Amino acid sequence: MPSEANHTVRRDRLRVLLAQRDIDAAVVTRLVNVRYLCGFTGSNGALVVREDGADLLVTDGRYADQAAAEAPDVELLVDYPARTGVRLPVAVHGVKRLVGSGERRVGFEDHDVTVRLYQAMTQAAPDIAFTSIEQGVEQLRMVKDDVEIAFLRQACEISDQALADVLKTVREGMTERDLARKLDARMREYGADGPGFPTIVASGPHSAIPHHQPTDRQLRHGDFVKIDFGARYAGYHADETRTFVLGAAADWQREIYQLVAAAQLAGREALRDGASARDVDAASRQVIADAGYAERFTHGLGHGVGLEIHEDPFLGYSATATLADRIPVTVEPGVYLPGRGGVRIEDTLLVGVEGAESLTRTDRDLALL
Amino acid sequence: MPSEANHTVRRDRLRVLLAQRDIDAAVVTRLVNVRYLCGFTGSNGALVVREDGADLLVTDGRYADQAAAEAPDVELLVDYPARTGVRLPVAVHGVKRLVGSGERRVGFEDHDVTVRLYQAMTQAAPDIAFTSIEQGVEQLRMVKDDVEIAFLRQACEISDQALADVLKTVREGMTERDLARKLDARMREYGADGPGFPTIVASGPHSAIPHHQPTDRQLRHGDFVKIDFGARYAGYHADETRTFVLGAAADWQREIYQLVAAAQLAGREALRDGASARDVDAASRQVIADAGYAERFTHGLGHGVGLEIHEDPFLGYSATATLADRIPVTVEPGVYLPGRGGVRIEDTLLVGVEGAESLTRTDRDLALL
Repeated sequence: MPSEANHTVRRDRLRVLLAQRDIDAAVVTRLVNVRYLCGFTGSNGALVVREDGADLLVTDGRYADQAAAEAPDVELLVDYPARTGVRLPVAVHGVKRLVGSGERRVGFEDHDVTVRLYQAMTQAAPDIAFTSIEQGVEQLRMVKDDVEIAFLRQACEISDQALADVLKTVREGMTERDLARKLDARMREYGADGPGFPTIVASGPHSAIPHHQPTDRQLRHGDFVKIDFGARYAGYHADETRTFVLGAAADWQREIYQLVAAAQLAGREALRDGASARDVDAASRQVIADAGYAERFTHGLGHGVGLEIHEDPFLGYSATATLADRIPVTVEPGVYLPGRGGVRIEDTLLVGVEGAESLTRTDRDLALL
Repeated sequence: MPSEANHTVRRDRLRVLLAQRDIDAAVVTRLVNVRYLCGFTGSNGALVVREDGADLLVTDGRYADQAAAEAPDVELLVDYPARTGVRLPVAVHGVKRLVGSGERRVGFEDHDVTVRLYQAMTQAAPDIAFTSIEQGVEQLRMVKDDVEIAFLRQACEISDQALADVLKTVREGMTERDLARKLDARMREYGADGPGFPTIVASGPHSAIPHHQPTDRQLRHGDFVKIDFGARYAGYHADETRTFVLGAAADWQREIYQLVAAAQLAGREALRDGASARDVDAASRQVIADAGYAERFTHGLGHGVGLEIHEDPFLGYSATATLADRIPVTVEPGVYLPGRGGVRIEDTLLVGVEGAESLTRTDRDLALL
C-alpha cells in the first residue's frame, strides 16, 4: 500500500473536470483543497492548476522551505512581503502569472474567494473571464484513495483506544473538562496530530445540548455522559460519539438510548454504494419519528469526513448526494430532552459496494460506567 | 474590574461608525467579529446590528441553547435545517429580516463574504444597497477594554509559567514533539483553553525555518532550540518566542542571538501611543540591517493579538497603522541562517501612553539549557 499521497494524480483528475467545463486553468484558494492537490499545509497559499501540467504554488516567505518540502512536484512562487513592502494576496500573484498566457477562462472557488479578493483578481487580469468551479475539488475529495483510507483507519483506531483507556478512569466527581483533557492527551500519546475538533463531554442535563463545551460540572450518579470526539491523524479526521450512564440507568434513559441505538443501526444498514444521502437520513430519522421524538432530533444524520471534520456528502433531509464506494461518512442520530438529558451515537463508516464498514468500533450497547 | 464583557457597548461603538458612513444596518459574518460584538462562540452565526438597537443573532439548531446563553442581550433567530429541509446561509436569513424595514444601505464584510454568499444576499434583498464596512469591526477590536486586557494578562502569565516548568525537563535526546506536547499539556493544566496556535519547537538546523512544525528530531548538544507558543485564555491569545542553546553556545550562535536581542529591544522601546507601526518595524529592522543580516529577517516585526493570534495592527515595512494606548502587539524579530540555525525572540506587549509593558516576562538573556 502506498504511504504517500500521489498529488499529481489528484491534480490530473481536476484537469479532467476543468476540461469538461471548458476551463483553461484554475486558481484554487481553499487551503484544504490546496493541501489535497499538492500537499502544502501552510496557512497561506494558492495553487494554479493548468491544462499543460505546469502547476504553480504561491505562498509567502514564512513558508518557502516548508512548501518546497511538502509540494516538490509543483513550481513554487514565493513572495517576501517584508522585503518588497507589498502585501499582495497569493491568489492575485497566481492570477498575474496567467496574464498573457493564452488561458482566458480561469476557474476560481466562489465559495471561498471573498468579494474583496475577487475584485483584486479581476483588476489584476482584466482580460481573463473568471468562472466558478463550484465545489469541484470537494467533489473529487469525496471518494478516498488508499492513502486517505489508511489515515482514516488510523485516526479511528487511535480514537477507540484513547476512549477505552479513559473510560476506565471515569469516576463521580470528575469534571467534564478533566475527562475531555484526558481524552485529548491520550489521543496525542497514541500518535494523533491532536483532537480533530474540540472534544465534547456533556454530562447530566448538559447532554441535552447537541454541541456542548465541557465545563467544570462534576459527574454525578445517574448522569448521562455524552462524549463526541475524534483524533486527527496526518490531517484526516475520526468522528465518534458514545453516550454512557454513570452508575445506574433510569427507565427513561434506557428508553431513549435504545431508540437512538435502533435509529443508528437503521442508518448504518442503509449505507451502500448507490444509496441516496437523503434516503439514509430518512431511514434513521423514521425510527425516531415513529417513537414520537421527531422534534427532539434537531440536526442532520451525518456528514463526510476526511481532511475536514465536516465535508461532502452531507446526510440530511435536503441532501442530494449519492453515496459510492470509498466514501466515508458519519451516522449520528440523537434525541435531546431539554433540561433532562440526551443521547447521541455516532460512528465513522466507510461506504462499500455491499454495505458499510464501521471504522470506529467501540461497543454500542448501553454501558454503565 | 469587570469580569464579563459588555457587548452592548461594543455594538454601540459599531453603530457610531456605521452612522459616520451613512449605513443603516450591518450584517456581520466574520465569526470572530460576531463573538466580539455579542459573545456567541459557535461556528455558524451572523449578527445584524441596527441603528435602533434591535440587534439580531442568526444561528442554526445545533447552537440554539448556546446562543441564548452566550448572547442574552440580542434577539435570536434559529434555523432548524433538519426540519425545514432548507439550508439557507445564516447571513441570508439576517438579510431577509431587513427587507421592507426601511434600512436601505446595509453594510457587510467584503473581506469575509464569499462571492457565492454575496450573490445569495443580493438575490434575497434586491432593493438593498450593500456596501462594505471594510475592517470596521477589526478596527474597533484593536484597542482593548479592561476585560480583554485581563484575559490577555492571564494568557501570558500561563504561558510564562508553563514554559518555566517545561524548561526544567529539557534534556538531550528529547524530541521536538515531546517538548511541544509537554508545553501544551502544562498550559492546559494552568487553565488555558489550549494552545492558541500549533506550538513550534524547532531545534538545530530546523530553527532556521521560521514556522517549523515539531518533528521526532532529537535535541542534541549545541542545538539552538526555538520555541514559539502561547496559551489561549477565554478566547484571548498570548504569543511568545524564546530561543535557547542546549549545553554550550558557539560564537556564531552568541553573535546572532545578541543581534536579535538588540533588535527586539529596539522594537520594544519604539512602541508607544502615537508611534507608527512602520517606524516600529524600521527601528528594529535597522539593527539587523546594520549588522549585514537584512536578508535573513524574512518576515514582519509583529502583529496585534486578541481574539485572533494575528490581528490588526500589523508591524511591517508597508504598515499604515498608528499605535495607541491599550493596543497589544508582538515584537518578534528573527535571523535565520538556512541549514545552520536561527533565532527569534518575541513578546506580547501592551502599548501605553509612555511606552509599552511586556505581558510575557520570561528572561531574554541567552540561556543554556
